[in-house]
Amino acid sequence: MTTLPVGYTYNDSSLESSPVSMPILGELLQDVMWNEDDSRALRRAGEILTPQTSEILDAWYDFIGSTPHLVSTFRGPDGKPDQAYLDKVRGRFERWIVDLCTRDFDAQWLAYQEEIGKRHTPDKKNRTDGVDSPSTYVPMSHLIALIVPVTVTVREFLELGASEDDNVDAMQQAWFKAVTLSVALWTRPYAPDLW
Amino acid sequence: MTTLPVGYTYNDSSLESSPVSMPILGELLQDVMWNEDDSRALRRAGEILTPQTSEILDAWYDFIGSTPHLVSTFRGPDGKPDQAYLDKVRGRFERWIVDLCTRDFDAQWLAYQEEIGKRHTPDKKNRTDGVDSPSTYVPMSHLIALIVPVTVTVREFLELGASEDDNVDAMQQAWFKAVTLSVALWTRPYAPDLW
Repeated sequence: MTTLPVGYTYNDSSLESSPVSMPILGELLQDVMWNEDDSRALRRAGEILTPQTSEILDAWYDFIGSTPHLVSTFRGPDGKPDQAYLDKVRGRFERWIVDLCTRDFDAQWLAYQEEIGKRHTPDKKNRTDGVDSPSTYVPMSHLIALIVPVTVTVREFLELGASEDDNVDAMQQAWFKAVTLSVALWTRPYAPDLW
Repeated sequence: MTTLPVGYTYNDSSLESSPVSMPILGELLQDVMWNEDDSRALRRAGEILTPQTSEILDAWYDFIGSTPHLVSTFRGPDGKPDQAYLDKVRGRFERWIVDLCTRDFDAQWLAYQEEIGKRHTPDKKNRTDGVDSPSTYVPMSHLIALIVPVTVTVREFLELGASEDDNVDAMQQAWFKAVTLSVALWTRPYAPDLW
C-alpha cells in the first residue's frame, strides 16, 4: 500500500460534497471540449506521469522557489519559506497529478476539487498543515495564470515516458483541458455568487 | 482607416485606468513564463491571424451557438439569442484577437482588460450594447474554462497562414500564454479582494 500524503482527504467520509452539481460539471466539460479521446489520452498520460511525479514536482518547485511572489505563499511566521509546509504541500501536489489522470470526474472528485479550492482561500489555507503563515490566501490571479506552467512543463515528461505508439500531442491536450477544468473548479470559493 | 467596432473604447480618454499595476502585471507574466521569444511569436501570430479574424469568429460562434449554456449569455428580453447583441460582441471579439497580438502589455492595455472584465460582470454586462438581457453576468467558471477552446482552435488558422520558416508550436504557445494572462486579468472584478 502506498502511504497517502499528510492532509490528503480524498476518501475521507468527512469530506463535504461540492456545491457544483454534475450537470454544471457537464457544462464545464463542454467548455473545454472534453471528449472520449481525451479520457483515453489522460489515462495513458497517468501511466507515464505517475512514476515521474517526484521529478515533475522538482521542476515545479524549482519554478516556484525561484519566483519570489510565488514562494511567498509558503512563508512561515518569520516571513521565510517554511520547508515543512513546502514538503507537505508537495506530497499532495504529487498525488494530485495521479488523481487528475486516474480518477473519474464524479461527485467525489468534485468534492475534493472544492476542498482544494478552499485550501487556497482564507477559509482553509494553512489550516491543513497547521502553519501560522502571514500568507492567508493564494491570489486567484496566480492560480489561474499557473495553468500555463503546469500545462507546458509536463510535455518533456510525457515525451520521456512515451512509446512509439503514443500520441504526445493528444496527451498534452487532454492534460491541458483537465488542468484548466480543475483550476476553474478551484476558483469557486473565491467568487461563489458570480462563479 | 479601419472602422472600429461598436463599443470599442481602447483609445477612449474616458477609459478608467486599471487597479492592476505594472509590477503585478510583471508577476503574472512570470507566472505564464513569458519571454522574448513569446513576444516575437505573438507578433508573427498577429500577422497570420489578423486577416482570418472573421473565420476564427465563425468557428468560435459555431461553438458558442451550438452550446446552449454559452449562447444563453446572449439572450434578449424574450429569452432567445439576440442577433444584434451577438453581432456587436463579435466585432469587438475580432478586434480583441488583433489587439492581443499587436498591442504592448502596458497600462493602456491593462485598462482595457479591466474594462473587458467588468463587461462580463453585473457591473457592466449588457450596458455597452444597450441590451435588456436576463443574463446579467458571464459565470466566471465558463470564462476560465473557455481558455481551452480559444487556445486550441487557433492552431488550424496558424497552420493555414504559416510559411515554412514559421514555428507554429511557438506561436500557439505564445497565444496560449497571452490568452491565459488575459483571462486572469478579466477575473479581477469577480473577486477583487482575493484576486
